[in-house]
Order: sequence, then structure tokens, then C-alpha cells
Amino acid sequence: MTDFAARIARAAADAADAGLAGVLAAPGPDLLYLTGYTPNAVTERLTVLVVTPGREPVLVLPTFERGDAEGADVSFLEWTDGEDPYAAAAALLEPGRYAISDACWALHVVALQEAGAALTSMTASLPLLRAVKDADELAALTAAGAAADATFADVLELRFSGRREVDVSADVARLLLEHGHARADFAIVGSGPNGANPHHGAGERVIEPGDAVVLDFGGTLDGYGSDTTRTVHVGEPSEEHLRVHEVVRAAQQAGFEAVRPGAACQDVDRAARAVIADAGYGDRFTHRTGHGIGVTGHEPPYIIEGETQPLVEGMCFSIEPGVYVPGEFGVRIEDIVCVTDSGGRRLNDSPREPRVVA
Amino acid sequence: MTDFAARIARAAADAADAGLAGVLAAPGPDLLYLTGYTPNAVTERLTVLVVTPGREPVLVLPTFERGDAEGADVSFLEWTDGEDPYAAAAALLEPGRYAISDACWALHVVALQEAGAALTSMTASLPLLRAVKDADELAALTAAGAAADATFADVLELRFSGRREVDVSADVARLLLEHGHARADFAIVGSGPNGANPHHGAGERVIEPGDAVVLDFGGTLDGYGSDTTRTVHVGEPSEEHLRVHEVVRAAQQAGFEAVRPGAACQDVDRAARAVIADAGYGDRFTHRTGHGIGVTGHEPPYIIEGETQPLVEGMCFSIEPGVYVPGEFGVRIEDIVCVTDSGGRRLNDSPREPRVVA
Repeated sequence: MTDFAARIARAAADAADAGLAGVLAAPGPDLLYLTGYTPNAVTERLTVLVVTPGREPVLVLPTFERGDAEGADVSFLEWTDGEDPYAAAAALLEPGRYAISDACWALHVVALQEAGAALTSMTASLPLLRAVKDADELAALTAAGAAADATFADVLELRFSGRREVDVSADVARLLLEHGHARADFAIVGSGPNGANPHHGAGERVIEPGDAVVLDFGGTLDGYGSDTTRTVHVGEPSEEHLRVHEVVRAAQQAGFEAVRPGAACQDVDRAARAVIADAGYGDRFTHRTGHGIGVTGHEPPYIIEGETQPLVEGMCFSIEPGVYVPGEFGVRIEDIVCVTDSGGRRLNDSPREPRVVA
Repeated sequence: MTDFAARIARAAADAADAGLAGVLAAPGPDLLYLTGYTPNAVTERLTVLVVTPGREPVLVLPTFERGDAEGADVSFLEWTDGEDPYAAAAALLEPGRYAISDACWALHVVALQEAGAALTSMTASLPLLRAVKDADELAALTAAGAAADATFADVLELRFSGRREVDVSADVARLLLEHGHARADFAIVGSGPNGANPHHGAGERVIEPGDAVVLDFGGTLDGYGSDTTRTVHVGEPSEEHLRVHEVVRAAQQAGFEAVRPGAACQDVDRAARAVIADAGYGDRFTHRTGHGIGVTGHEPPYIIEGETQPLVEGMCFSIEPGVYVPGEFGVRIEDIVCVTDSGGRRLNDSPREPRVVA
């Protein structure tokens, strides 16, 4: 049984510590995390949870949504079409700035500001709101990681050569479900030159012998996701493919070894990036090293240069360096890592060395 | 072939007319409408189209999304993880306020403001950006409405009594697809007391003889949606059900007859609401009368008290009054109506009178 009251109390305390007047949680991950409630749809009608230290939390919502929100252990302030929900919400606010959910609509942000609210973004001001996972969350993420490992073991048995990326992707999605995910969220298959585009999905290209194939896949289990990347080789890999694979593997390992409480997020990025730069591929690693994971698939902490946020025990995030050679191939290796009292623990741990597929 | 350049030119002209410096279109309906481009996912990474009168439109986006956006006929300003996209975007802005897409994330809104951007919301300042449909859009909405009518004709042949709402809902979704929708978006089945909750979906309740059943369903066809509500009666309806049904039908008709260029949105709401209030059910009609429809399922113009926006030929919106008797039943009737030079035209037009189902 999730202790939502404890989460709200922690959010209020964190806000006070950060010098904020409170938190405004909009529909989406923050509201779900703090109350267990998520509306059927995110719309132009204002729904927002007002969390102020020392006061009862109040959920402002349209009257006709009240029934669905009944399970949330908060006070309700209902409004009806034609009333001004922004004035009503602003009247609940104490002086000072409130951190508002990253994904809250601009429509609501601007209207709340015009009603007198002083706002700052959640990521900028309270990056840790959902970043440190409690025991239930760690158990769910660990189960998702184990399911991803089991998926990859079966992926190695798939036929790649002569098949389209979309067909292999469909197989990976099926295996995610077979190994216990309730939902398959993504199954990127970037073969040959498509692997050099970090955000390629899966296309019509027919996979060929000699291809390196980037497989980035994940699903959701009990509300928490897996997110793994492995790069496999169709038949014996070339020397260049092997060389780049080893650079990326070593970079991922270096990032992992930099994880410990008190290290800065950017230290993990720097450790991974240094290995790639030293090998002469610095300009081929074109994205940050990682992102947090929890109720959402991408959330703070972000593992990136300039992010000085110290790591805290219980944070979970990806470490996923890559090297991309435009027009030729790409290699990326990704694990989800949890910060422990003494270092890091991988929540998925399939072999990172080169594996040959058929 | 959609003329995106014409849409961007009109957005720029509308912004100038409204005294704005320009438009910031974020991923979602505005960006799709103006460029045809929509990213795979809406994320914490800034993507925004800057439209300024008299200047080339510029799409600010992450470098690795550039390939997917290639088809958009705009200039590109790429940024890479670690750079500050907000300063780069703000540097493109002219003095004055920009209207920003309603669904743009708070994270981006606040960061753009902190970089110096003065923002107002799209709905507040440029409600007509997507409200007046061009010929291609009207054709798509008309086709979707016809498919909804064909769906309802078959729905009347379904068995209701003794089946769960979710089973009838699955049948309605299947019929939406059979009649040409590419996607079934929603199929609300609110039977008996569930019909009194305007945003009930479909549940485990077994439908009984004597129930009134609210059916609110729609799908998407060529990117544009249908959205229809009819209330059917399982076996012979009671006198009260018939009385309320007739009140709602007359209200819907009165709203429809109030549609003409130059009438205010609130005039349509008032016309429908007066019929219901006169019949003594004023406090049972708990929502606005309607919403625009187009690239999205809910958009301006909103048909609500206080909305003085004049209707313009080519606007399309729902007229959907309802009466909800808590714990007992509900009746709602909804058509999508297009504003013509002389009045209104219904894009779906199934019988609104009571129909008995098995």
C-alpha cells in the first residue's frame, strides 16, 4: 500500500527546504506519484494539486471529475464550467514561489501567473521530488530490469539477417510482454546506417550480414519501466565495429564506476565521455549519458555536463553512452543503475560484450 | 496537398492583428497544423516553431530530431544536449508578446520566460489559429461525421440488455472502424445511473431493461475526428425519461438554430441552456454546451457562457447539452456543427428522437 501522505509530506518539506512556498502538481507523473490519481485525459480544464507546507493538500478539479478522484486522500475544491478556476487556485496560494509540474500546460501556467501565482519549474527547483525511490519503487524497477534481461536472452535467438527492422521490433515487443511486462513501450531497431541516428525507431530496412544493430527496448510492469540498450552484430563483426563496441562498453563501465552518493550527475557523464574522447570518438557521442526513470521513462536526474546535483542513495537512472558514425553504424549500451550506499547497482545486467546473431 | 506556408502566413498575420509579436508553436496540434511535423514524443527537450510576422519561420529542435523534421518547410535551429536552447530561442524573438501553444510544457514556458520571452496563451490571445477550417479540413470532418452516422445506425441493432457496458463499448469501437475510421478514440457507454456522470467511460455494470444509455463515441479519419452522442432506451422508456429526452433534444435544436456568423459562442450556449432551465432542469446541465474540433478533439471555440468570440464561417464545434439526474440516469445529445454563411450545418445527423434498443 503506497503511502501517499508520506510522499506529500516529503514534497512539502522539500519545497520548504528549497525556499519555495509549495508545489503545484498537474495531471501526469507528479499528481500520480503524490495521490495515485490521474484523470482520464489531460485537457484545457484545470486540475492541480496545491501542496503547501503546514496546510492540508487541496486538489482543484472540475466537478464532474470528482467521482474518479474519490480515492485520493486530499481535500477537494471543485469548479464548474463558467467559473474561474485560476482565481480559485490562486486564492489557495501562500506568498512566494510554487514549483509547477514540468508537463503542466502553458494555458494553465500563463493563466495562473495572470491570477497572481509566482511559478518556477519543478525540474529547476525540486529535481528530487520523485528522484529518490522508496522500497516499493525499487522492487518494481528491479522486476522490470529482470524482465528486460530475460527479453534480451531470447532476442539473441532471433533471426536478424534478411528481415526488416519492423519485424524484429515486433518480436522484441512480443518478448517484452512474454517476460512479464504489462506493456511494451518501445523497441528500437537501428540496423547499419540507421543505428547512427540515436532516435531512429524501426523501419523498412532489411537487415544484412555485417550490420551492427542497436536494440533499445523497454516496457512497463506495475507502473515502472525497463529501458535497456544492447548492440548486436549480424555475423562476425568487422574490426571497426569491434573497436567501437569496446570503446562504448568501457565508457559505460566507467560511467557505472563513477556512481556513488555525493558524486555529481555530471561526474558520471564525464567519466563515460572521457573514455570515448580518449579513443578519438568524442564528436560521435552526441547526447547526454543518461536520464532518471520512475513513474515516467525520462525524468530527473539527468546525467549531463553542467548538472551538479549530487547523487543520492535510491536514485535510478540510465547510463547509455553511444558512438554514431553517420551513414555507417552506431553502438549504444545502456543499463538502469540505482545508487546504493557504496556505489551503484545495475537493475539490468545482460552481457555488454559483443554478441553475434543470425 | 496542404498549404502549410499559407497557414504560417495566416498565423503571422493573425498575431500582428492581435498586437502580438508572434507565435510559438510547440509539439502537438499547433506545430502539426502549421508544419505537418510532429515529433515522436513530447519531452523535456525544447522543440518550438518561432513565427514572427515578416520573418522566416524557424523551428528550434534537438539535432537528433532534424532528420524526422526534414519535410517541414521552415528554417532549422538545431541544439545539442548541454547547450541552452532557451537562450537560443529567446534570441530569435522580437520585442513584444508571443502566443505559446496551450499544451507547451510548463518546464519550457518558465525557462523561456526566464530567458526573456513575454508569453501569453494561444487560447487567450489567438483563439482562431486553428478554428476556421479550410476546404480540406471540412471535407475530412464531413467524412468523419458521415462515418459516425453509419456507426450509429448499426449501434441501434446491437443487443444492450443483459450485457456489460464495456462489451457494448467494444462493439461501438469495432463499428467505428468498420465504417471507415482509421482509429476508434472513445466509446462511452453510460447506462442507468452511470449516465448521470458526464465523463463516465464504460464499466462492468450490466445494462437492464428500462435503462437510458448515453452513447458518446468518436474516431479519427484522415487526421480529423468525429464526436457524436445519442441516448438510447432499453425497451420502452419511462415518461420521465421521455420528458427529459425531449427537453435535451429541443435544447440541442435551439443551440443549433442559434448558429450563424457573428453570433457569439455564448449565444449558442444560452439558447440551449434556456430550454433546459425553462423545463426546470437548469441545475442538472452541469457543463458547457460544446467545444471546437479539428486537429484535436477539444479546441477553441468553446461554447460557453462568457465566451463572446463571434462565430466565423468555417468554424466547427460540438453542440451537446445534457441533463443528469444523479443516481438515476442521464441524457445527452451531440452533433458537430459547421458555421455556414447563413447558419449552421450538422456534420453528423443521426436521428435525435428517442430510439428503443433491445
